Amino acid sequence: MKIGILNGPNLNLLGKREPDIYGNLTLDDLKNQLLSAAKNKNITLEFAQSNVEGELINIIQEWAKENCDGVIFNPGAYTHTSIALRDAISSLNMPFVEVHISNIYKREEFRQHSFTAGASVGVISGLGFFGYVAALQYLTEFNEKKSKNK
Amino acid sequence: MKIGILNGPNLNLLGKREPDIYGNLTLDDLKNQLLSAAKNKNITLEFAQSNVEGELINIIQEWAKENCDGVIFNPGAYTHTSIALRDAISSLNMPFVEVHISNIYKREEFRQHSFTAGASVGVISGLGFFGYVAALQYLTEFNEKKSKNK
Amino acid sequence: MKIGILNGPNLNLLGKREPDIYGNLTLDDLKNQLLSAAKNKNITLEFAQSNVEGELINIIQEWAKENCDGVIFNPGAYTHTSIALRDAISSLNMPFVEVHISNIYKREEFRQHSFTAGASVGVISGLGFFGYVAALQYLTEFNEKKSKNK
Amino acid sequence: MKIGILNGPNLNLLGKREPDIYGNLTLDDLKNQLLSAAKNKNITLEFAQSNVEGELINIIQEWAKENCDGVIFNPGAYTHTSIALRDAISSLNMPFVEVHISNIYKREEFRQHSFTAGASVGVISGLGFFGYVAALQYLTEFNEKKSKNK
Amino acid sequence: MKIGILNGPNLNLLGKREPDIYGNLTLDDLKNQLLSAAKNKNITLEFAQSNVEGELINIIQEWAKENCDGVIFNPGAYTHTSIALRDAISSLNMPFVEVHISNIYKREEFRQHSFTAGASVGVISGLGFFGYVAALQYLTEFNEKKSKNK
Amino acid sequence: MKIGILNGPNLNLLGKREPDIYGNLTLDDLKNQLLSAAKNKNITLEFAQSNVEGELINIIQEWAKENCDGVIFNPGAYTHTSIALRDAISSLNMPFVEVHISNIYKREEFRQHSFTAGASVGVISGLGFFGYVAALQYLTEFNEKKSKNK
Amino acid sequence: MKIGILNGPNLNLLGKREPDIYGNLTLDDLKNQLLSAAKNKNITLEFAQSNVEGELINIIQEWAKENCDGVIFNPGAYTHTSIALRDAISSLNMPFVEVHISNIYKREEFRQHSFTAGASVGVISGLGFFGYVAALQYLTEFNEKKSKNK
Amino acid sequence: MKIGILNGPNLNLLGKREPDIYGNLTLDDLKNQLLSAAKNKNITLEFAQSNVEGELINIIQEWAKENCDGVIFNPGAYTHTSIALRDAISSLNMPFVEVHISNIYKREEFRQHSFTAGASVGVISGLGFFGYVAALQYLTEFNEKKSKNK
Amino acid sequence: MKIGILNGPNLNLLGKREPDIYGNLTLDDLKNQLLSAAKNKNITLEFAQSNVEGELINIIQEWAKENCDGVIFNPGAYTHTSIALRDAISSLNMPFVEVHISNIYKREEFRQHSFTAGASVGVISGLGFFGYVAALQYLTEFNEKKSKNK
Amino acid sequence: MKIGILNGPNLNLLGKREPDIYGNLTLDDLKNQLLSAAKNKNITLEFAQSNVEGELINIIQEWAKENCDGVIFNPGAYTHTSIALRDAISSLNMPFVEVHISNIYKREEFRQHSFTAGASVGVISGLGFFGYVAALQYLTEFNEKKSKNK
Amino acid sequence: MKIGILNGPNLNLLGKREPDIYGNLTLDDLKNQLLSAAKNKNITLEFAQSNVEGELINIIQEWAKENCDGVIFNPGAYTHTSIALRDAISSLNMPFVEVHISNIYKREEFRQHSFTAGASVGVISGLGFFGYVAALQYLTEFNEKKSKNK
Amino acid sequence: MKIGILNGPNLNLLGKREPDIYGNLTLDDLKNQLLSAAKNKNITLEFAQSNVEGELINIIQEWAKENCDGVIFNPGAYTHTSIALRDAISSLNMPFVEVHISNIYKREEFRQHSFTAGASVGVISGLGFFGYVAALQYLTEFNEKKSKNK
Repeated sequence: MKIGILNGPNLNLLGKREPDIYGNLTLDDLKNQLLSAAKNKNITLEFAQSNVEGELINIIQEWAKENCDGVIFNPGAYTHTSIALRDAISSLNMPFVEVHISNIYKREEFRQHSFTAGASVGVISGLGFFGYVAALQYLTEFNEKKSKNK
Repeated sequence: MKIGILNGPNLNLLGKREPDIYGNLTLDDLKNQLLSAAKNKNITLEFAQSNVEGELINIIQEWAKENCDGVIFNPGAYTHTSIALRDAISSLNMPFVEVHISNIYKREEFRQHSFTAGASVGVISGLGFFGYVAALQYLTEFNEKKSKNK
Repeated sequence: MKIGILNGPNLNLLGKREPDIYGNLTLDDLKNQLLSAAKNKNITLEFAQSNVEGELINIIQEWAKENCDGVIFNPGAYTHTSIALRDAISSLNMPFVEVHISNIYKREEFRQHSFTAGASVGVISGLGFFGYVAALQYLTEFNEKKSKNK
Repeated sequence: MKIGILNGPNLNLLGKREPDIYGNLTLDDLKNQLLSAAKNKNITLEFAQSNVEGELINIIQEWAKENCDGVIFNPGAYTHTSIALRDAISSLNMPFVEVHISNIYKREEFRQHSFTAGASVGVISGLGFFGYVAALQYLTEFNEKKSKNK
Repeated sequence: MKIGILNGPNLNLLGKREPDIYGNLTLDDLKNQLLSAAKNKNITLEFAQSNVEGELINIIQEWAKENCDGVIFNPGAYTHTSIALRDAISSLNMPFVEVHISNIYKREEFRQHSFTAGASVGVISGLGFFGYVAALQYLTEFNEKKSKNK
Repeated sequence: MKIGILNGPNLNLLGKREPDIYGNLTLDDLKNQLLSAAKNKNITLEFAQSNVEGELINIIQEWAKENCDGVIFNPGAYTHTSIALRDAISSLNMPFVEVHISNIYKREEFRQHSFTAGASVGVISGLGFFGYVAALQYLTEFNEKKSKNK
Repeated sequence: MKIGILNGPNLNLLGKREPDIYGNLTLDDLKNQLLSAAKNKNITLEFAQSNVEGELINIIQEWAKENCDGVIFNPGAYTHTSIALRDAISSLNMPFVEVHISNIYKREEFRQHSFTAGASVGVISGLGFFGYVAALQYLTEFNEKKSKNK
Repeated sequence: MKIGILNGPNLNLLGKREPDIYGNLTLDDLKNQLLSAAKNKNITLEFAQSNVEGELINIIQEWAKENCDGVIFNPGAYTHTSIALRDAISSLNMPFVEVHISNIYKREEFRQHSFTAGASVGVISGLGFFGYVAALQYLTEFNEKKSKNK
Repeated sequence: MKIGILNGPNLNLLGKREPDIYGNLTLDDLKNQLLSAAKNKNITLEFAQSNVEGELINIIQEWAKENCDGVIFNPGAYTHTSIALRDAISSLNMPFVEVHISNIYKREEFRQHSFTAGASVGVISGLGFFGYVAALQYLTEFNEKKSKNK
Repeated sequence: MKIGILNGPNLNLLGKREPDIYGNLTLDDLKNQLLSAAKNKNITLEFAQSNVEGELINIIQEWAKENCDGVIFNPGAYTHTSIALRDAISSLNMPFVEVHISNIYKREEFRQHSFTAGASVGVISGLGFFGYVAALQYLTEFNEKKSKNK
Repeated sequence: MKIGILNGPNLNLLGKREPDIYGNLTLDDLKNQLLSAAKNKNITLEFAQSNVEGELINIIQEWAKENCDGVIFNPGAYTHTSIALRDAISSLNMPFVEVHISNIYKREEFRQHSFTAGASVGVISGLGFFGYVAALQYLTEFNEKKSKNK
Repeated sequence: MKIGILNGPNLNLLGKREPDIYGNLTLDDLKNQLLSAAKNKNITLEFAQSNVEGELINIIQEWAKENCDGVIFNPGAYTHTSIALRDAISSLNMPFVEVHISNIYKREEFRQHSFTAGASVGVISGLGFFGYVAALQYLTEFNEKKSKNK
């Protein structure tokens, strides 16, 4: 099983960026937490981050070609503005779980609309890195059920 | 540790109600999943469901008095209309995780606003019963950290 | 055949409440009109009224369990604010006809939107008690057709 | 007693037009149902249909001159766009009952506002041809009461 | 010099229609007032009224072909809904003065927007029949100036 | 003279709930202040609190039956969402004074609209418990004037 | 008979200000036109202009005390922003005719709403200085009728 | 094969009307261009124009009865205001291509919404008469494919 | 202790202005009521009224320089339009209580927003002159508490 | 003559992406259709696709430097969100024809606004690949006319 | 060369007013900074401040008569509400640079719209007193260029 | 001291692009002006331009790593659409001054909102290249003060 973990704009600054909102762990810390969660479970994890909307689309399309079994996606600020990313998610046959580290319902009005969520399976928001771990667990169970049903 | 699981209006119909949206497992099935997830972890679970907005407030206040360590709350349709429930959550010192079985971003416009989410720690939406289980896991870890820090 | 007649908040004040809008007949007068319309037609009528949104949901769920063949529902002010009632109607397999005594299109802007109507079969508004009687007639014919088609 | 039955744009296509929404009975079927409902009741029925907004106004004004005792009016799409029809209804001394075959609350956003309803006595929506029959019954009772009170 | 006086929907009911808003003088009274105002001034007046939006356009186009020197236009309810009438006014080389008998700023919100006014020279609203007479005087002076400037 | 003091959702938490907004006096402290203000004035005070919208309606209707001379009402969060409570106030012949402990104009956008205020005599907002005392004084004077005028 | 002519902010710049919109005649030219229109008619004209919203209110109140028989008022930009001027007009017993030199329906969106028009008898917009002259004529006839009716 | 070409309000003024927006070719020039495009292709063209919304509906219904294979429709200003025309298009089994001579996205805000386009196969806007010719070509190919598939 | 009582535009007309809304007592009657309420309490009252927005700001700034202990402010129509007054209130260290004689929630939509209330301590609306008296009492108690706490 | 054909985000997935909306032909099929349409016409075609908003701007600027005679542009989802692309089109001297494969008027609300269309010559929407071919034909004729006029 | 520096409502409180937003330098400090910036440059500076909207218009008109070469204008709260000030700026032939001490984009929603900016040459916001100095420098260079070009 | 000058989409076209709005100087001319302004002041300038939203974020992050002392940023069209750029500015510890060559308040509605300005120190708009020079001067003074205060 292969799962992609995709982070959008400014998430490479994690740990340095507004730590009262995003905490002070870095993207590498996240990677380690997810790798240790995936250990012994026969799951390969792919990690990618980009600040460029269109490159995020490129990565998503690439992973779909490589038959990725699901994507954990934190689209950052593009959540609220990108119909192109929504279309990329809808166009392909991979399940997406959208994750936000902070609770977007506690923030500015313009962060409370999500274009991408409507094309995803579900959303986890406000639970910090735990959201990524739970999404991984969800996609694992989801794929196990699917392969059992075959 | 004590965690409350609170379900709002029409969720007592789970299994019978619009199964293409909500699946065909019942509230009892949910209870069993959560009990088995909590087993051997020294967690007491409280379950409640009500169709009455004000009774949900009463239950929340009651649990706060009993020093509940957290609440997993699916406010159902009151998510979108109840400032009174938002105030109940804000008024007390318990962490809430909001859970929705279906992905509200895929549904009607009027289901895409949440009054209660802004007063909660976070939200899990669209992942079915898994959302409750993950919320339980989150609150457990959250309380363990807190008690370690004391 | 069993038909429920359900009245929402403040409708127990009928006859006393703003008689220039609602007339000066009472809920008992309505009951008598409907009973006399149902006489000799092999229809049982159930009557209920509540000022509590959630109790209206409870009653609806109860009637569904008792295999009620249809509900005539005047949700009063909850028409305009209750998604929970809309969900109760959608969740069950009973036909609803929404009735309003006054013509809501002649009243305040905030009374011109109906959450519940979109989940009902249809709406009769502004025809006074006649609306209830016509709804009863409709549900009777509707159920007769249905049983003929079996 | 004389009652007019007026149908607006595209209702001459009834039976052919989107039968999943409007059923497959025709305007002639409607006429027959209403004639049989009026039989033996000393009521004359006038029928008219037009696709032209201004011709509908002309017909309404004509019927008012002929001392029509009420109008059953399905303004079709003009319901949502015509202030001129609303004014025609308000300008004259005849009671109007607005009828819609389909439940407009279940359809597009732009069909949920009615200019004409606010000038009518009431509205019946979503009950198919039954709505016309009930409106006829209402106007008959209404006029009987009025003539008794003289 | 030739001036057209064009009245829109329901204005043929003047004198009968909502007399508290529109007074109890009729369209014939208006005609007489305008004829007597035009007397001895070498002005020919054309009068027309229609309830049909498109016929009003037809009349406007016809008058333009006959080299009418100006139009006094009360578009009635079409003021608020007709872009087609606005286009007819813009498309031709005749000055229009829009007249409303009642003060539209004192009425419903939906009567406070005018599509046609933006294509006219100006608007007189709320001054009763006087508005037509003043418009006639304006167009007369306007055309006299224009012919002097040639 | 009998005056009712009615408090809505979460106001039973007064003193514990967000003390920086609502202060740290409790509902009992409020009761004592009002009782001492009413002493020696031949006024009976009734106190009630409920978290349930419909129960608040029930209480209001009950007090009206008991010929209460006025109600001091803090509808809490239902201020902003309850048309049913507005209707209860309009339906009965008792004067209401709406009171808010905090200044709702300094709070979230969604707290700046009041459904209930439009049906009340007036509103006092932001003056803490003093608002209740002043409302009591107002209703007392109001009723004294009324009985003098008889 | 006494009529006041009141001009609002920046109208003292007439003739210099944006001549393509407002023409190149000055406020003095306007005064002369109106004086010559009033000659031999037993009408006294009062003229005033101010750039200060509150001074315009002062002048209006002053004229009311002096039993002015009507006011021709061009509120300039305050038309669109001043509720205080609207209240001044409503508070007194003088008829107001609102005049705009340019056609406000041809200008920016924010100039298409008028607070003051709803409190006036009527509005003339877009007919240049002619609008003032016609308003004077209207108020003269209006007062003559009124004194005849006494 | 039979194709109808239908033009809406004010399009009979083509060549005279605002030539900087619509060019100076007339409706006859358009007819000739289309006839020459259809020559030798076994296509019959029907041409119609009306300023009356309801007559456009009549023509559409008529053409449907005559088994027209498609309609090229420029609804003019009714594009933005007519739900009745949208319903006429939806109610029948003919493919419509909507054409606008000017680019409606470059014009006033109120011209940027189309009721009719959502019921048509597609829209060509801003390409002048070429839009009609391309629409004809499209409908021809469309019908050829359809008849091949039979 | 010194308290200022400031009244905004058109309030000098009290008693004459729309008496069904504002009653028929004058500003002098108000002054007398407040003076008699302040008697024997060691409070100096300052009274001012202006129709000019900027003069109200001048007065507020002047009173602040004179170390006024609080202001009772009825900003009249400027309540709904003046950010400059809001800023004046925020800029200084005096407590303001906003008072409205009529219940603004019962009036036009545009009177239901207050710019000034958000900068004040609280608001009393709809209780007539009593509102001023209660505000005086509040500010007196407020200042007594403050001086005790020093 | 040189014409560019530019496709935006996710259009490289054509044939695979939501085939019920976009058909199952690929971008290569489109290329072949356009090449065969351009054959023997002395037109060079340039093809480009990118998922990156800014790269689309780069390509447009590049083509302008190479004196491209026109661009056929399907901006995909950026149609609805990109002012930067609109500016790129406006900044250069090349005619653009916007093409959409599906009829955007039949899709989600957020797809019904176009930033780019207002800067283009025109738009073809809903006619599948035919839209590109017609746009090519339009630009060819357009440039032939232009070179004749030199 | 003569430059006017005009400050609007509450700016006379600078140094005392909300120092966390506006700093603690006074209007006199600003004057001194600007005088020292203008020294040796052959520029006369005029300073004015008023809290009255209409007096600001008076000053602007006065300076225009005195052939002022430019105005540095901080309209304070009138920025967001005054169309009359916008008109004063548009009506005259002086260049205006709008200055705000604080960054209005960081403040309340209602401060993010500017009526006056659209009539000015440009705006400097958020750079404290530096904004005035830069505006002075801009207007100096602007006028030097203009006089060179003569 | 090091200052970055960053220009967004289409600004590489300066001099060629819509010269009536943006003038005919190029980005190189701007560079030279800024270099000559920075001469002899011990300031290093970095210049960058990109059409890609995400590359602008990359550059900003890069400059932050290199301890840049401030950024002069013209985000072009991304000003109005990019939350991701706003987040990049907020996430880092560098002061930004936003510059626009044209006055955005004079342009289309959609250019009057700025996502990036709220995260910057301030904004200069409409003063051409002078805006960049003034921003440089501001950042220089700002940093000098800061280093003095250390």
